Amino acid sequence: MQIGLIGLGKMGYNLALNLRDHQHEVVAYDINPETLDQAATEGIKTAYTIPQVAEKLTGRKVIWIMVPAGDPVDAVIKQLLPNLAPNDIIIDGGNSNYKDSIVRAENLKVKQLYFLDCGTSGGLSGARNGACTMVGGDPAAFAYCEQIFKDISVENGYLYTGKPGSGHFVKMVHNGVEYGMMQAIAEGFEVLHKSDFGLDYKEVARVWNHGSVVRSWLMELVENAFNKDPDLSTIKGIMHSSGEGKWTLETALDMQVPTPVIALSVLMRYRSYEADTFSGKVVAALRNEFGGHSVEKAD
Amino acid sequence: MQIGLIGLGKMGYNLALNLRDHQHEVVAYDINPETLDQAATEGIKTAYTIPQVAEKLTGRKVIWIMVPAGDPVDAVIKQLLPNLAPNDIIIDGGNSNYKDSIVRAENLKVKQLYFLDCGTSGGLSGARNGACTMVGGDPAAFAYCEQIFKDISVENGYLYTGKPGSGHFVKMVHNGVEYGMMQAIAEGFEVLHKSDFGLDYKEVARVWNHGSVVRSWLMELVENAFNKDPDLSTIKGIMHSSGEGKWTLETALDMQVPTPVIALSVLMRYRSYEADTFSGKVVAALRNEFGGHSVEKAD
Repeated sequence: MQIGLIGLGKMGYNLALNLRDHQHEVVAYDINPETLDQAATEGIKTAYTIPQVAEKLTGRKVIWIMVPAGDPVDAVIKQLLPNLAPNDIIIDGGNSNYKDSIVRAENLKVKQLYFLDCGTSGGLSGARNGACTMVGGDPAAFAYCEQIFKDISVENGYLYTGKPGSGHFVKMVHNGVEYGMMQAIAEGFEVLHKSDFGLDYKEVARVWNHGSVVRSWLMELVENAFNKDPDLSTIKGIMHSSGEGKWTLETALDMQVPTPVIALSVLMRYRSYEADTFSGKVVAALRNEFGGHSVEKAD
Repeated sequence: MQIGLIGLGKMGYNLALNLRDHQHEVVAYDINPETLDQAATEGIKTAYTIPQVAEKLTGRKVIWIMVPAGDPVDAVIKQLLPNLAPNDIIIDGGNSNYKDSIVRAENLKVKQLYFLDCGTSGGLSGARNGACTMVGGDPAAFAYCEQIFKDISVENGYLYTGKPGSGHFVKMVHNGVEYGMMQAIAEGFEVLHKSDFGLDYKEVARVWNHGSVVRSWLMELVENAFNKDPDLSTIKGIMHSSGEGKWTLETALDMQVPTPVIALSVLMRYRSYEADTFSGKVVAALRNEFGGHSVEKAD
């Protein structure tokens, strides 16, 4: 199948190779011409503008967008529109907010265009060798593209989730669960780390990955990390995030769903950004005010 | 190897069969004679009192205790002592508190006996077909028993964790991580459940198990559960616990380790015991007192 692909970032580039390996004809665009040149050496057709991608496709066009969530997605769609015809399909494979995806699907429907929102999980190795995809949108448009999702995913690794937005919704919640699982694993290793048993974390992760209840891909990744750096002394414990945990929490709040573990997982990430906190100063000051408890002086 | 086994509960019975399959000669005791008779039909040697177990073993004795944590472990040890000789080894394969295991190892050392604390994970299927074992205690005693742990565990599924108590400590933290992972997964499905996307939970769990970041044995178990009961309508959301999550939290508090996700996982279990809460009444009453906000009358 011919597929336009906008965005050859870490995920997009691997996806292009994955599509190519499954005999799809990829016409790719990236903002970085060097990345495009590199892709060309791998047998990926390239376009040096976004409109060119649509121009180079024939028949009913399918264009996969893999760019950062938010305005970049709308900007790409806007540039594609002049070269699209009724029934063409745009797939957003990035981590867009599901509410944006619902709006985009509605706006494109007015123009007789289809929009599929595809949550893509599995990290870089998944994008390259077999991802997990959750796809929402018009069922007929999904059916037209189903072979693509089947090809780029591991066996049993794709799902049509239903109406527009549902793919990114399920992916968003997946990431909320991921935050909670990661924080749970991390807290466990923190307790092991603070104990005086002198444990070998890579060995603990290894045994937990073999036959235990907590065996999981995340635990395997922790095992890999400890194998490279036994006590992770080379990295700081600053936990960045790309928004989906926050969205899961915001959605849970809007729905009045109690999700304390996901909430705390998000908040602990924010806590990790700061070496010291203003709230800590406030509590220390209050203890001093009412009880004369000592405070630690700032440097 | 000859092994005494005290306790043929769900875990112990499966462990007996697992040991038997690996050509170990099991001499088992259980408080329930019918269970013993059943075990006898499976080729397990039986003893109808605890002292008899030790009597029936020859040479350096190895006795595996698989009884509920706390007093039952001490009661079993007390009954075994008269028939034990220096260098004999007691293995506690149950979910004992690691602090108790440290004390037991010290007390038995005075009597020239060895004590190995073995955390056993993997549920019933693990006990039967290949568990995950984390073993603390004297290194020579571990070496003497290593083949047992190797045989009953999956490949790569056993670990000598170090000094006495470390096996049960690592298993305790494992369970704390398990609580957090379970609660994270559960909260994710709660958000899916409250959405209006009409999702098929067993299909979501299925796709999340194939190529996604959250793929894990727990997610597979969730998939099994949804396959049997698509919206779990036949069971109540009351989350019992057997203590290891609480111990992990208590240990974290003693060590001053912030473990918010594990903490909330434990507290949400307790919340689940109550259909209504006194704290809820207090907050409702306060809102009424200061703001005249309406309260809902008790039935």
